[in-house]
Amino acid sequence: MENVRPDSIPNPAVRRLSLYLRQLESFKRKDRRTISSKQLGESLNLTDAQVRKDLAYFGQFGHPGIGYRVDDLIGQLRRILGTDKTWNVLLVGAGNLGRALAAYKGFERKGFRLAAIFDADPAKIGRKYSGVVVQPMDQLGSTIRAQNIRLAILTVPADHAQEVADQIVAAGIRGILNFAPVSLNVPPDVGVSPVDLAVHLEQLSFQVNFTPVLP
Amino acid sequence: MENVRPDSIPNPAVRRLSLYLRQLESFKRKDRRTISSKQLGESLNLTDAQVRKDLAYFGQFGHPGIGYRVDDLIGQLRRILGTDKTWNVLLVGAGNLGRALAAYKGFERKGFRLAAIFDADPAKIGRKYSGVVVQPMDQLGSTIRAQNIRLAILTVPADHAQEVADQIVAAGIRGILNFAPVSLNVPPDVGVSPVDLAVHLEQLSFQVNFTPVLP
Repeated sequence: MENVRPDSIPNPAVRRLSLYLRQLESFKRKDRRTISSKQLGESLNLTDAQVRKDLAYFGQFGHPGIGYRVDDLIGQLRRILGTDKTWNVLLVGAGNLGRALAAYKGFERKGFRLAAIFDADPAKIGRKYSGVVVQPMDQLGSTIRAQNIRLAILTVPADHAQEVADQIVAAGIRGILNFAPVSLNVPPDVGVSPVDLAVHLEQLSFQVNFTPVLP
Repeated sequence: MENVRPDSIPNPAVRRLSLYLRQLESFKRKDRRTISSKQLGESLNLTDAQVRKDLAYFGQFGHPGIGYRVDDLIGQLRRILGTDKTWNVLLVGAGNLGRALAAYKGFERKGFRLAAIFDADPAKIGRKYSGVVVQPMDQLGSTIRAQNIRLAILTVPADHAQEVADQIVAAGIRGILNFAPVSLNVPPDVGVSPVDLAVHLEQLSFQVNFTPVLP
């Protein structure tokens, strides 16, 4: 692992690490102790070669004649993905979707703790959502620096998203989960994971809708 | 367009149609009447060749010496993506995230109307969220058929997701926005768009976290 450069690991392999972790956690709930790359792959419609190749980017985790120890591999994947520790997460935008995400228990279960909420609306400042007080935008930079926050969830209107992204990146944010329906321009060392829910539905409606006449 | 087979259109091209549509809507708000493929591409960090190639799958939309008429191309893209009409959408799972999505205004703005909500919890049945009454699971099939619903949002626990997917697909659902942290097995003519929010954050934490020692 010490010799791996993150640039050399393909993004799809990193995404599959998350899928492996989910699957292993599910096997663990069913009291499975060990699993082969073939079994892990089959549960995700992947080949065993793909599983072994993905994991090999990060180390040697299998044991001959045993396969992977489920507990052990879960621990290793969490360490690689960084979810073996708790991350403070910032939420910018306390609208409908933002408040919903603040209340969503799924984040905390994975080690992502809501540390601060910001909104531009004076009527929302000082209110508490999911136990966290909404702060005004002019405290954004100082709070990020004081709490050493690296991850942010952005649920602001499209027209303000870039401006907010610039502010939080300048203050030290290195990963943004972006729900604003707009592409963000950020420096190369900052990750953006876009989640445009309407686009997801649009892609599904395309598939259901698009039934052209064949020649 | 009549001669295009959906299988021959790459998924990334369809995803970019959504991005073009967002960008064109933004240009329209700024009162732009026409736009070139170069300008549209630049706003999304794409080449003009990519823009022209993607659109060419669906028809001839540009005008020599003018480019694209913004209003016209918005209408064409909405027609192709199926968002020129209103879709009834089903929500299964009225937990925290489900109720938040029910309240999210972004869907309705894009033509996705919440038509029905289902939950297995007797305490939730009969309650109203965002104006829609929660129905018991045994009415799932009959409601889908009666209202001719094709799209569903799934926010049920991982352990129940496949079982619910089987039920709604059998009743006629053809597109599923899946928030359950599990891969769904569905027939090839059914689309699944997975949104695992914790995985998104995990991918970002990997990027922030993963700073290996170089040799």
